[in-house]
Amino acid sequence: MGQPQTSPEPPAVPSWEQIVEAHARIAARIHRTPVLTSRTMDRLSGAEIFFKCENLQKTGSFKIRGATNAIFSLPDEEAQRGIVTQSSGNHGAAVACAAAWRGIKAWIVMPRNAPSIKCEAVEAYGGEVAFCEPTMTARKETAAKIQAETGAVLVHPYDDDRIIAGQATAAKELHEEVPDLDAVLAPVSGGGLLSGTCLSARHMRPEIRLFGCEPAKADDAYKSIKTGRLQPLDSSDTIADGLRAPLAARTFAILRRELSGVLLVSEEEIIAAMRLLWERMKIVVEPSSSVVLAPLIKEGGVASIQLPARADGGKPRIGVILSGGNVDLSALPF
Amino acid sequence: MGQPQTSPEPPAVPSWEQIVEAHARIAARIHRTPVLTSRTMDRLSGAEIFFKCENLQKTGSFKIRGATNAIFSLPDEEAQRGIVTQSSGNHGAAVACAAAWRGIKAWIVMPRNAPSIKCEAVEAYGGEVAFCEPTMTARKETAAKIQAETGAVLVHPYDDDRIIAGQATAAKELHEEVPDLDAVLAPVSGGGLLSGTCLSARHMRPEIRLFGCEPAKADDAYKSIKTGRLQPLDSSDTIADGLRAPLAARTFAILRRELSGVLLVSEEEIIAAMRLLWERMKIVVEPSSSVVLAPLIKEGGVASIQLPARADGGKPRIGVILSGGNVDLSALPF
Repeated sequence: MGQPQTSPEPPAVPSWEQIVEAHARIAARIHRTPVLTSRTMDRLSGAEIFFKCENLQKTGSFKIRGATNAIFSLPDEEAQRGIVTQSSGNHGAAVACAAAWRGIKAWIVMPRNAPSIKCEAVEAYGGEVAFCEPTMTARKETAAKIQAETGAVLVHPYDDDRIIAGQATAAKELHEEVPDLDAVLAPVSGGGLLSGTCLSARHMRPEIRLFGCEPAKADDAYKSIKTGRLQPLDSSDTIADGLRAPLAARTFAILRRELSGVLLVSEEEIIAAMRLLWERMKIVVEPSSSVVLAPLIKEGGVASIQLPARADGGKPRIGVILSGGNVDLSALPF
Repeated sequence: MGQPQTSPEPPAVPSWEQIVEAHARIAARIHRTPVLTSRTMDRLSGAEIFFKCENLQKTGSFKIRGATNAIFSLPDEEAQRGIVTQSSGNHGAAVACAAAWRGIKAWIVMPRNAPSIKCEAVEAYGGEVAFCEPTMTARKETAAKIQAETGAVLVHPYDDDRIIAGQATAAKELHEEVPDLDAVLAPVSGGGLLSGTCLSARHMRPEIRLFGCEPAKADDAYKSIKTGRLQPLDSSDTIADGLRAPLAARTFAILRRELSGVLLVSEEEIIAAMRLLWERMKIVVEPSSSVVLAPLIKEGGVASIQLPARADGGKPRIGVILSGGNVDLSALPF
């Protein structure tokens, strides 16, 4: 009584202006990755698919966008204390690389079961790896300890507006190149890439449909969107090693507002789509990337996401973000 | 006495006009492939390398350029009899694909030891595979027999000005994107890609240095350039299955005039460079492509090709053509 029944919708954060600023900050340091097409994939899907190839990005994934934006946003007096982060791999390599570009130190907390290729990448970029047990609690504690001891600035892999604004620049570039997309699909783990994708895509093409793609074995985003409440991540033993983190409240708030749905993908579908991308498109993608293709090439896949008919009568035009290409060639699943 | 001591230099064939016409004929049907760069490769080589990614081309190699130009150059009455060709793989797939685009039949003569992935590709594009023994004689005889029986038009993989003009469009695109290259390297087998590359590059940047790259195990181009006389191909048991054909007089005439040299690459260097391209650039290239990188990343590699100093004082800018990406993922050499 007397109190408002509902709180007002929070403002969209990060704002479009922050995304534009992020792009200006990072553009000269990163690759403007190509958007590839494939008649084979178009035939298999019945759609026109535009592949934004962040596997061809510096450090082998989109993560360099957010990391560069965050690290180059810091005032000098903060930056000089160095950076600490926790990462299953790609964010760690990106932070190590961006920190080296800025000439500052980076400590990367990684779970012991991270692929060795990702640990080696961190070290190759000059980062210092701090191993911990493969639990979110251990990762947070180890990062907090380093932060306390060194005064390093924590750059979270996704629960950070500077990171989200940076990741949003991939979809911004995709829309600059292909302005009339009907839908965009991106992988979802912690939600940094997907929430950034949502913000850019919604701003540039308000009527667009947006989907997350997630391993069925790590389906917290699916459950969270379905129930309207942030759900815990029960299990994460998927081959898609980049998709083993849970959503944050920050990313969930954006996804809840923008997503048309989350599409679940089986382990077999992930591996089959990955092999197809290698064989037919001649690009190396990691399992975490192939989740965006799998839903489109299965029987009835494009029909199931129920896109409105195009005014020009053409096939649906769908953008997908291939998030990374860091794979251990000595341990391929096919 | 009374007779000229030297015959006049023959005109450059195909002409620049034929290359421009070829590009206009094929541009809407093929991919304009991206030109990628990599700080890792720049660091390893001490140069700035620009990778023209024909592995990302339709049918997985540059061969679609020449095949499309040749097949769409034919008058209707010739085209309707169909096409016959001999190919170790990529040219066969390209002819099958371009013939299907034109709606005509294609017979592809292939050696029995061609990788199964390449045979399957020909069939997937609707081509008919005619197997023969893995000798140049058997291949020619089988193609001639089909030609005699069906009236099909023979489209040779490289001993054909229409093919050379088509292959030349890859270097044309590369120079349109990166106009100030100091050198271009391309693989050499029969010499279609390399001679076309020479014609485009020389026209667009007359002072450029041009190099062929060849497996040491199939070194007829090296010997031919070194001796100034067309040499036979003694052996061809290299892993680079796309580089097992000998030069033709037609391609040798161009290479002899334009090349600064042929760089030989060992089998181990081919495999190591291939793995490096997969791991660091996240692209699938076949062994025949990695011959262009190997000479640049070996100790003293760039110095050994003796490029003139740049007027701007910068590092050498080197274009390389990654020719294809058709690899059997079930039989990787690493």
